[in-house]
Amino acid sequence: MNMEIDCINCQLQQIIRTIKIAEESRWMEIMSDALNLLSEFAKQKNVPAAVSTYMQKYICKRLKCKDPYYHIREKSNIIANNLLSEIKKERTAFSIEDLCLLSAAGNLIDFAVIDSLDDCKSRIMKIFSNRFFINDICKLDKFLRQKKSVLYFTDNSGEIVFDKILIEYIKSHYTIKVYMVINVNPIFNDATKQEIIELGFEDYIDGIIEKNPEFLGFDLDGCHNYFKNYFAKDSFIVSKGMANYECFSTYDVNIPVIEILLAKCPVIANRLEVPINAPVVKLL
Amino acid sequence: MNMEIDCINCQLQQIIRTIKIAEESRWMEIMSDALNLLSEFAKQKNVPAAVSTYMQKYICKRLKCKDPYYHIREKSNIIANNLLSEIKKERTAFSIEDLCLLSAAGNLIDFAVIDSLDDCKSRIMKIFSNRFFINDICKLDKFLRQKKSVLYFTDNSGEIVFDKILIEYIKSHYTIKVYMVINVNPIFNDATKQEIIELGFEDYIDGIIEKNPEFLGFDLDGCHNYFKNYFAKDSFIVSKGMANYECFSTYDVNIPVIEILLAKCPVIANRLEVPINAPVVKLL
Repeated sequence: MNMEIDCINCQLQQIIRTIKIAEESRWMEIMSDALNLLSEFAKQKNVPAAVSTYMQKYICKRLKCKDPYYHIREKSNIIANNLLSEIKKERTAFSIEDLCLLSAAGNLIDFAVIDSLDDCKSRIMKIFSNRFFINDICKLDKFLRQKKSVLYFTDNSGEIVFDKILIEYIKSHYTIKVYMVINVNPIFNDATKQEIIELGFEDYIDGIIEKNPEFLGFDLDGCHNYFKNYFAKDSFIVSKGMANYECFSTYDVNIPVIEILLAKCPVIANRLEVPINAPVVKLL
Repeated sequence: MNMEIDCINCQLQQIIRTIKIAEESRWMEIMSDALNLLSEFAKQKNVPAAVSTYMQKYICKRLKCKDPYYHIREKSNIIANNLLSEIKKERTAFSIEDLCLLSAAGNLIDFAVIDSLDDCKSRIMKIFSNRFFINDICKLDKFLRQKKSVLYFTDNSGEIVFDKILIEYIKSHYTIKVYMVINVNPIFNDATKQEIIELGFEDYIDGIIEKNPEFLGFDLDGCHNYFKNYFAKDSFIVSKGMANYECFSTYDVNIPVIEILLAKCPVIANRLEVPINAPVVKLL
């Protein structure tokens, strides 16, 4: 999918948030140059995630800061771990549908929209007490039974804590290899390889596919051509979050893609024909 | 006051809203050019209202539409008139403070933030049931008693219905001349001369000072130098809304300015040290 006019709004929010990490005296100078760049992108047909990747890298270079979201990612994982502990105290048994829903709800831990821990917890619990607006869980189950491997494309820090219990479930209920696809180097608030190692994923998974250079979503046409080797007939993809959805709905990868997301923006909610913040599990 | 980084966000919302009046096929082309212009403005020190004026005129030219907000202004006046009728049924006596508060609350009728009539009514009534966060009513009263004329700088359509009952009160309780300062030609959702004539202002006021060419707020250094003739020692100004505040807090007009507004944006709320959406009557 290509950038629409409402994506410009979202791009600007991301730009402002990152620029504000610099000293205030530099804000308007960096903003002016960022708007100029965004103007160029608006002329072309681009996947929003690709524009975000470029804009974030550009601003980080101007900030002379490789990882402005380090503390936000760290805080996101703490919030998610605390919330998961609370949920586990109240409940011991989860179906795959429950865990997919929790993984989608965890997508709300995004400091684009949430500042406080309390707000975050209550909103996630509200989504978790709901149901999927699009529910292709049976198709996910079919692929997990029939395919040899799943390539799991992660999204934000925090959210990844809920991906972990979903993957634990998959490994204990299906005989399938699980490969995590993750950025080695940090970009925005996307989870990094270091985080999944610290969270103990390696005890469950069969391997890590590194996105290097880092990218929000993924870029099949560009630097990530090597991905194609992993897209074998006996594999399928689980794609988490909006940036991955934007990419997988644009590039044809020739293997099935199961998208799990929260439709946080009007452009994607409209495209999926669901309300804003609806949880979705959908075969693309 | 000059444009800050959060003003860029507000500018973009205004730009998107106006561009969406064009055919969808032209949105991104106009957006790209608008971002490029906005990038230039971000480099300089500019009053936000001046940037809005320029951007809105530029987009209207691209849309080939002189008055894209005609129906919105018309609807705003209907909403305000209905609401005022309801209020008058419940209540017959108003103090000048009540009427200033209603005039400030009416500033909420701004289709930047509100879509429905119901939401609009309940929010205005909530503000009207509150008090001013900054309250210089006694200074307004003093000027109305001591000065020979007041120059009343209007803001949005809809809101102007509440300005009218304030002016009726002023004319019946003070011996002061009242001059309305208003755009002849439409710009954005600002009230126009035609509207104040249709609303029957001329039965109460002593004259109209025309802003021509049209401008959000006013531009003392530029095309509106002729204003200076009206800024006599025996006069003072009532300035409605944020765009006028931005201008009067930047230019020194050598006569007192009483600002009546709702602090709808974080930049102005922060500058006035009040919460977002606080009603304010303040001697600048």
